This record gives sequence, C-alpha cells and structure tokens, in this order.
Amino acid sequence: MSGPRDEIEALIAQMARLPGLGPRSARRAVLHLLRKREGQMAPLAAALSRVAETARDCPICGNIAMGASCEICDSPARAIGEICVVEDVADLWALERGGAFKGRYHVLGGTLSALDAIGPEELRIPQLIARIRAEAVTEVILALNATVEGQTTAHYIAEALEGTGVRVTSLAQGVPIGGELDYLDDGTISAALRARRAL
Amino acid sequence: MSGPRDEIEALIAQMARLPGLGPRSARRAVLHLLRKREGQMAPLAAALSRVAETARDCPICGNIAMGASCEICDSPARAIGEICVVEDVADLWALERGGAFKGRYHVLGGTLSALDAIGPEELRIPQLIARIRAEAVTEVILALNATVEGQTTAHYIAEALEGTGVRVTSLAQGVPIGGELDYLDDGTISAALRARRAL
Repeated sequence: MSGPRDEIEALIAQMARLPGLGPRSARRAVLHLLRKREGQMAPLAAALSRVAETARDCPICGNIAMGASCEICDSPARAIGEICVVEDVADLWALERGGAFKGRYHVLGGTLSALDAIGPEELRIPQLIARIRAEAVTEVILALNATVEGQTTAHYIAEALEGTGVRVTSLAQGVPIGGELDYLDDGTISAALRARRAL
Repeated sequence: MSGPRDEIEALIAQMARLPGLGPRSARRAVLHLLRKREGQMAPLAAALSRVAETARDCPICGNIAMGASCEICDSPARAIGEICVVEDVADLWALERGGAFKGRYHVLGGTLSALDAIGPEELRIPQLIARIRAEAVTEVILALNATVEGQTTAHYIAEALEGTGVRVTSLAQGVPIGGELDYLDDGTISAALRARRAL
C-alpha cells in the first residue's frame, strides 16, 4: 500500500512505540479511533497536543509541571520539612495515589550506574543537596526501589547528606499488605523478620 | 488532586478508552509520552489530528479514505469485476495484508441483527445492490465472519442477489494453515471433511 494510507500506517507505527502496545494492538487502537473520529480521535489529539505544549519538568523537584513549577511544590498545604526522594515521576504518582505523604518530593530521574556512566550530576543529586541547604528540611525519606541500583543510590545520598543535620530515612521493607508468606521471596521474609515489631 | 494535573488525568482517561489499554497501562503510556514530549508526544498529537481531520468513509465501498474516495476504489489496477463483501474495515485490512485479493471491496459496517434492530438499510446492503447493477460486477465474494450473525448476513445477501446474474461465492472453510487437528473444534473438522478436495 502506498499514498494516503501511509499516514495511517505511520500513525500505527507511532502508537506501537507506546509501552503496552505492540503492532497488532496499535492497529486495533487506530481502527477504533478511525471509527470514532469526531468523538474520540480529535479530542485525544487535542488533549495530547495541549499537554505536550504545556507540560515541563518542575525546576524545583523534577515532577511534571503544568505551570512554572509543579502543583505539589506550589501547594501551601504540603509540609516543607519533609522531602521524599524518588527515582522517577511514576514512583511519585504511585506515592500520591496512596495519599499518605504530605511533604514534598525530589525526583532523581534514575539511579546511579557506573556501567551507563550515570553519576550524581546526571541525577539531580546536587540540586537535592542545594534544596536541603536552602529550605528548612528536617527529614529526607529515600523512597527508592528495593533493587541493587536503588539501594546503591540510597546509600550514596545518605552519605552525601551526612553532616547536614537532616534526618535520613528509607521506606520500611517487609510483607506487603495482603501478601502470603508462601509466595514471598526469601529476601523479603528475612527483611520482615529482621525488622519485626512488638504488637 | 486538582488543578493542572486534571489535564493529565483527563488524557489518561481518554487513552484508557482505547481497546487493549486499561487505566494502568494508559497511565504508563502517558508517563512514557510525558518523558518524550518533543520526540513522541507532539508528533503523535499531530499525526492523530491530521488523520482525524482527513479521514472519511469512502462513499463507494465504506473503507477509510484519506481522499474523496479510498485508494482501492481509486486504483486502476484493481479488478472491477470482483467485489469482496466484509463486515468491517478491520476485515478489509486483514484481507489486504494477505495481498491475495485484487478486486474491490464493500464494507457492510456490521451484521444483520434483529435484536439490535440492524436491518439491511443499516448495513449498506442497498448500496451493494446498486453497485452491482451499475458496475460490471461478475462475482461477489462474501468474506463474512464464520459466526452465526456473519452467516445469516451472507445468506440474506446471497438471496438478495438472486436474479442479478452475478456469481456469489464465500470463503472456504477448513483447517487453517499450520493448524493441528487435535486443537481444532469439531465444527471446523466437519466442515473441512465435507469440503475435502482431490489431491
């Protein structure tokens, strides 16, 4: 096929690059949109273009911002004494869905990796240290993934913050809510046992 | 959350309405696009909006057209003697991927259904009969799904075309290429046995 159909094929190829969609499901999604051109395709195009134009990285914390800074940094309701450090905006969204944290965030944008030549400068770690010096921060919560890279990065940050007088904590490790011991890995069970609490 | 984040949440809700994407995968896809605003999000928005504006239903066959009529109807290389009748544009695309059919199509837009009050008028069947009268059509191939609704619709069309002198055929039923008998349903095996051919 050639000519005008190319535009549809190009659209399918672009959709297929989204995570969770392959060539087949992208074709199905585009067909679905082609059937609902007025009701769904045009509004989706408009919403995408509006967000693509407006969204930017918050200069303070690295979250996605729709204004000059993100709405968490802008909010007077969020405690300025606590900064929660996350790898990625996805992690920030996950914590926000929980709704348990009322402080502010700092998005690193990845983890330290000697192999990929990702050092502290690439990770907004200097900005974190500058924030801690400039703002009235009392606690830094390291909410990094429980992977080797995440924990290496957590240790690096904890060392870098030594002497600033700020309290450095990390998320508790243990049995997830609803988790069954039989299905948990040994590492999690050992961690939960070591961190056991009096009832 | 309220305010500017609403725009992102609205975009996620729109993405989640696509087939194959749920709320979680839509969120993942939007986050992916937010990270690649320049390289992927803006181009995807542009491609969607261009196709939404340009695409229309081909007035001749019902395929998606990017011009006044679709490129299959426009093509002088396609035989005008054969019309392949399909339920949906997705089926037309599937046949085109095979590349075995060199004639033209007629997209019904569904199947007859007394329950849903879908009669011949809703299915572009009058247009099909008008085309057969107006064009030099010699064969109508009914490539409808092998479902009860598809076969009911096929029989209706075959009866409606009686007396027009046009040859009405349907797709062969049998063992799919690469199919293993042990995994096939009884209906398919019976159909393949009834339609057996000399080697």
